[in-house]
Amino acid sequence: MSTSNLSSSNRLSLEETSWVTQFLETYGQENVIYNLTMGTPFWSPPTSVQQAIIQSCGLTETYRYGATCGLSQLEKEIGKLLDLKFASSCGNEVMICSGSNQGFLNILLCLCSPGDEVILFRPYYFSHYTACLLAGVKPVVVDTDSEFLPQPQGLRISVNTKLVVVVSPGNPSGRVISTDLLRSLYQLCFQRGVWLVIDEAYEHFTFDGMENSCFSATDGVINLYTFSKSYSLAGLRVGYFCYPNYLRKSMLEIQDTIATHACHLAQHAALAALRDSSKECIQNQVQEMVPRREIFWQVVSKYNTYRANGGFFFFVPIPKSISSYDAVSYLIHKYGILVFPGQLFGMPNYLRISYGSLSLHETKEAANQLNKALATLWDNR
Amino acid sequence: MSTSNLSSSNRLSLEETSWVTQFLETYGQENVIYNLTMGTPFWSPPTSVQQAIIQSCGLTETYRYGATCGLSQLEKEIGKLLDLKFASSCGNEVMICSGSNQGFLNILLCLCSPGDEVILFRPYYFSHYTACLLAGVKPVVVDTDSEFLPQPQGLRISVNTKLVVVVSPGNPSGRVISTDLLRSLYQLCFQRGVWLVIDEAYEHFTFDGMENSCFSATDGVINLYTFSKSYSLAGLRVGYFCYPNYLRKSMLEIQDTIATHACHLAQHAALAALRDSSKECIQNQVQEMVPRREIFWQVVSKYNTYRANGGFFFFVPIPKSISSYDAVSYLIHKYGILVFPGQLFGMPNYLRISYGSLSLHETKEAANQLNKALATLWDNR
Repeated sequence: MSTSNLSSSNRLSLEETSWVTQFLETYGQENVIYNLTMGTPFWSPPTSVQQAIIQSCGLTETYRYGATCGLSQLEKEIGKLLDLKFASSCGNEVMICSGSNQGFLNILLCLCSPGDEVILFRPYYFSHYTACLLAGVKPVVVDTDSEFLPQPQGLRISVNTKLVVVVSPGNPSGRVISTDLLRSLYQLCFQRGVWLVIDEAYEHFTFDGMENSCFSATDGVINLYTFSKSYSLAGLRVGYFCYPNYLRKSMLEIQDTIATHACHLAQHAALAALRDSSKECIQNQVQEMVPRREIFWQVVSKYNTYRANGGFFFFVPIPKSISSYDAVSYLIHKYGILVFPGQLFGMPNYLRISYGSLSLHETKEAANQLNKALATLWDNR
Repeated sequence: MSTSNLSSSNRLSLEETSWVTQFLETYGQENVIYNLTMGTPFWSPPTSVQQAIIQSCGLTETYRYGATCGLSQLEKEIGKLLDLKFASSCGNEVMICSGSNQGFLNILLCLCSPGDEVILFRPYYFSHYTACLLAGVKPVVVDTDSEFLPQPQGLRISVNTKLVVVVSPGNPSGRVISTDLLRSLYQLCFQRGVWLVIDEAYEHFTFDGMENSCFSATDGVINLYTFSKSYSLAGLRVGYFCYPNYLRKSMLEIQDTIATHACHLAQHAALAALRDSSKECIQNQVQEMVPRREIFWQVVSKYNTYRANGGFFFFVPIPKSISSYDAVSYLIHKYGILVFPGQLFGMPNYLRISYGSLSLHETKEAANQLNKALATLWDNR
């Protein structure tokens, strides 16, 4: 507490939102035997990334201020990738940011005035929720169907709604949203003068023959991406988004004020990762994720878990008699397993299990231990 | 313009605040012969920085998510530095951020609710002003005296004031604020339950026998620093601030939501820079800045310019008959000189001249050209 009558902001409702950071502070990594929280894949980036870092750290420009929207070579390479993805040039601008969280805040501050409403689908990605609170906008949380799919007819657009956020594949649900559904959501939004933000952090991680959604438009849509997942650069903090040109003035101003620009070393690493990670190389990672997914599926499928077709998560139901915070505490104390409580994502009767960052050997051990843990949790309900 | 009735945020009053990014877009670097806008010193970081980057790019952890508040070794090294600086352990927490702009936004969101007031002294650092607009708080701009010194009796603290921001040495004024004056400001603020944020980006750059202010407290003060200036790491985006422990929960949450953490490569670079940049090494840079400063002083002293005792700026008066935007356009078109308009800093009758990033040879040429340019500007008033 302050020794004076100093106070701090009322933006955060800290009970819920600071749970992750608080929890990880209290239960240090030393108590965690099986960490099933990480939103990163097991693999390290290709060796060309190291070479690019070594090369760029010898350049004077690396240490000087650079372009607000990012290195022009990286911007061009991303532009080509997006043209290919969307099968035509959508003519949108690219902004390279210090990770997609910073990108999301940039978008939020650019589009929403204080008091505006932002629609998030439950279960939501917690940083989106917290970012709304920080920006002084109201997160309006809308339920998805029983398989975590957004329902266009359930959208609660009001006169104050400024944007709708979808995450595909979902975090924590792992749910892939089809291109058709995205188009329907977009049409609904656009008619009402509401923006659609599509966060595709886990874009390449899809299973069971699914392909991820692929939707953009020249107006009314912002697509958000990261180098943290498919390119294994989480620790370097680099992501990007593409947005309509007429927002460029504000976007540059906001980017300059928050981040100035993304770290130059990280941008050079991202450029190498993008040039070197062929579609095949990423596809191999996804293939190697398949056995990990099946091993965990054998465990979680016993509890009416939705078979996520994307990401590397399962969002597992727990007995209604226990809070997800208590369940997490129980799992760490009794079994050394760290998972995320569903409450973080707006759904208190679930746990998020992430299997992406484990070796195949660790996967087997962790799944075995989780099997025991979930059985006890359900038996003691 | 949007093709629908989509709108964006009313946070920014874009005419003023986006001037820098817009201007630099319109007049590309190719038209600039003498760039006198850069807030970075001429020198490159020590070679140990490159070695640290090369070493860290071989580590798996570098690419994984890390601690929200930064690498523990860097946190400890900064802690030692601050203990030494403030001649005792103030017991405050350290947060490593992706540059001090991101740090400032973090502080603002942590301390201020929407609608609160933040006092900035004119001339203010433009990113502080814009950050207030983005955060939905009201920047209350207070005049300084004729030599750009904040006046405690002029503080317009209201019931809505949440914090007072001082920059020492000032940007753009170059004015060093004494420790005594900071203490007086702090006492006034603390009595009224108002926070004091002290931004010391240019801490080591002081002249004419001045030492920079050195003030902190266990409560009510946040000290903000960067690795961009004395350590020449601007392009890597890393800074830090120290703050009272009881804000840790919110600070971590906000940091996680905006930045996750600073880029690991940048943090390793900062650690090497901190370990290797002896006080002597930084002092040498400041000594080498002295002749550059004198060369420009010969030019700007003709126009009743304040002899800045810090930073590497002069804030030069221009005729009242011309706007600072027009003056900047005139200087670039006729003389190839790029400077910042005073309007950016809240004072339309000035130009900010930064001499920090030039070689001694460039300094002479640029000063010579500026001499002609200012003479014409004043002759044609």
